[in-house]
Amino acid sequence: MPQSTYAITGVSSGIGAELARILKERGHYVIGFDIATSAEHVDRLIALDLNDPGSIAAATKQLDIPVDGLCNNAGLPPREGLETTILQVNYLGQRDFLKRILPLLKPGASIVNMASRAGQGWRDGVHQVKRLSALSTPKELKDFIAAEGIDATRAYNLSKEALILWSLAETETMIGRGLRINTLSPGAIATGILDDFARAFGDKMARNVERAGRPGNPVEIANVAAFLLSPEANWIKGSDISIDGGMSAFAATEMLDLESLQVCS
Amino acid sequence: MPQSTYAITGVSSGIGAELARILKERGHYVIGFDIATSAEHVDRLIALDLNDPGSIAAATKQLDIPVDGLCNNAGLPPREGLETTILQVNYLGQRDFLKRILPLLKPGASIVNMASRAGQGWRDGVHQVKRLSALSTPKELKDFIAAEGIDATRAYNLSKEALILWSLAETETMIGRGLRINTLSPGAIATGILDDFARAFGDKMARNVERAGRPGNPVEIANVAAFLLSPEANWIKGSDISIDGGMSAFAATEMLDLESLQVCS
Repeated sequence: MPQSTYAITGVSSGIGAELARILKERGHYVIGFDIATSAEHVDRLIALDLNDPGSIAAATKQLDIPVDGLCNNAGLPPREGLETTILQVNYLGQRDFLKRILPLLKPGASIVNMASRAGQGWRDGVHQVKRLSALSTPKELKDFIAAEGIDATRAYNLSKEALILWSLAETETMIGRGLRINTLSPGAIATGILDDFARAFGDKMARNVERAGRPGNPVEIANVAAFLLSPEANWIKGSDISIDGGMSAFAATEMLDLESLQVCS
Repeated sequence: MPQSTYAITGVSSGIGAELARILKERGHYVIGFDIATSAEHVDRLIALDLNDPGSIAAATKQLDIPVDGLCNNAGLPPREGLETTILQVNYLGQRDFLKRILPLLKPGASIVNMASRAGQGWRDGVHQVKRLSALSTPKELKDFIAAEGIDATRAYNLSKEALILWSLAETETMIGRGLRINTLSPGAIATGILDDFARAFGDKMARNVERAGRPGNPVEIANVAAFLLSPEANWIKGSDISIDGGMSAFAATEMLDLESLQVCS
C-alpha cells in the first residue's frame, strides 16, 4: 500500500517530473496534472490547462481521492506576447485550482506553491498584486495589463510576487482547516525554460549564475519540495524558502552593503 | 561506519539535543559542544563556553576530525542584566567559533546558524548590526550597550539580526570554500527557556502562540536543521528559513493588509 498520496501540477517535465520521481521512489502514490498528455513517474495523469477555467473545473472533478499534499508547480516562463496567459496560469488559475481541490486535502496536508526568486520583490509589489487579485474577467485582466504597461518579464515577476503574498494571506485560513501552505523560490534552474529566463533577465541572471557557479538542477528544488510536503516539515507554515545557490544572499549583501560583516574570507 | 560527522553547539538540551538524537538515529557521528557537562545522544562532548574566548579556542582545538556539517545552535534567551553575555554568546562568540572551526569543515559541508523569529527585523537593524560587528573588546561591547540603550530583549533581537545578516554576508565566501551557510528562524518553541521569551515578548508572543495553536516543539525545528545539514538541501545557500507555525505570515498579512487576497476562507 502506498504511504501517502500527493498531487503535482506541471508534472511532465522539469521540477515537477523530478518531484514525482522522488515521491514514487519513496513509495508514495502520485497523481499528476499537466497540459502535456504524457508523464513518467505518475500513477495517474489528469489533463489540466490552467489557462482554461473549464479545464480547471474538469480536472479537479476527476480527482476523487483525498491527498496528503499538493505541489502547485505548473508555470509559464516570461515570453513576449503571453502576458495574459502568464498571469492566468501562474497565479489566477493556480488560485482557482487550489480553491477547488481544497475539500480533498486531508487534515495535515501540505500545500507547496512554486514561486521564484523573480518574485522576491513582493514587498514592493503589494499594491499591484492587490489590483491583480481583484480582477474577475479575462477582459479586466487584459485591460489591467494594458493600463499598467505590464510586459512579459513584469507579468512573470508579478505572478510570483502574487503567489508569495497570496500564500502569506491564506496561511491562517489554512491552519484553521488543519492545512499548511508555503512557497519555494528557486533561482535560475537548468530546465527546458532556462533560455526564456536568460532572454528576460539577461546579464543580471548570467552574472548570478556565474557567482553561484552554475544554475540549479531540478532535483535540487524537488528534494526541498518533497521535504516540505512531508510531515517532518509540519511546523513550517506561511514561509517562503529561497533555493538559489546563494543568489538572493549576493543581492542582499550588495544592497545592504554588508561586506564589513565578513570575517571568514 | 558512521555515515557523516556533525558538530552541534548547545547540544545538551532543547533543539540541539533533539538534533543530536535525530542524527544519531540516522547513523551519523555526533560531536556535541556545550557549557553543560553532560549530553545524551552524542558520541563525544566538548566543553564550550561561548562567553569565553579562551574556551572557544580550547574547544575548537579539541575538534580533530573533519565534519560534514555544523549547527551553531547554542544561545541565551533575553534575560535582564545579561545584555553583554547575550551579544557575546549568540553572535560574537559564534562568529569566533565558526572562524576557528572552518579548516575542519569538509568540502560540501553545511553550516546552520540558529537565528530566530525575533531577528526578522534584520532589514531595519543593519546599521546597529554593523556597529556591533566592528567591536573588538569586551569594554567596547559594554560601552556600545550603554550608549545605544540596549536592554535584554533588544540584545537578543539584535544578536539574531546579526546572525542573519552575517550569514548573508558570508554566503559567497563560503561558496568559494565549497561550503554553504544558512539560518533557521524558529518562533516560540516549547523548551526550558520559553518562559524567558514569554517575559520578554509578553502579550505579543502569547497572541501568536494562540493563533498558531501552540508553541513549536524542539523536534520540529531539529527536523529542518537535519534536512538543511543533509546533501539533499545542497542548493539552499544564504537562506533564512522561518519555522514558526505561521507567526511571521500572520504578522506580514496584517502589516501589508493582505486580507483582500484571501479566497479560501
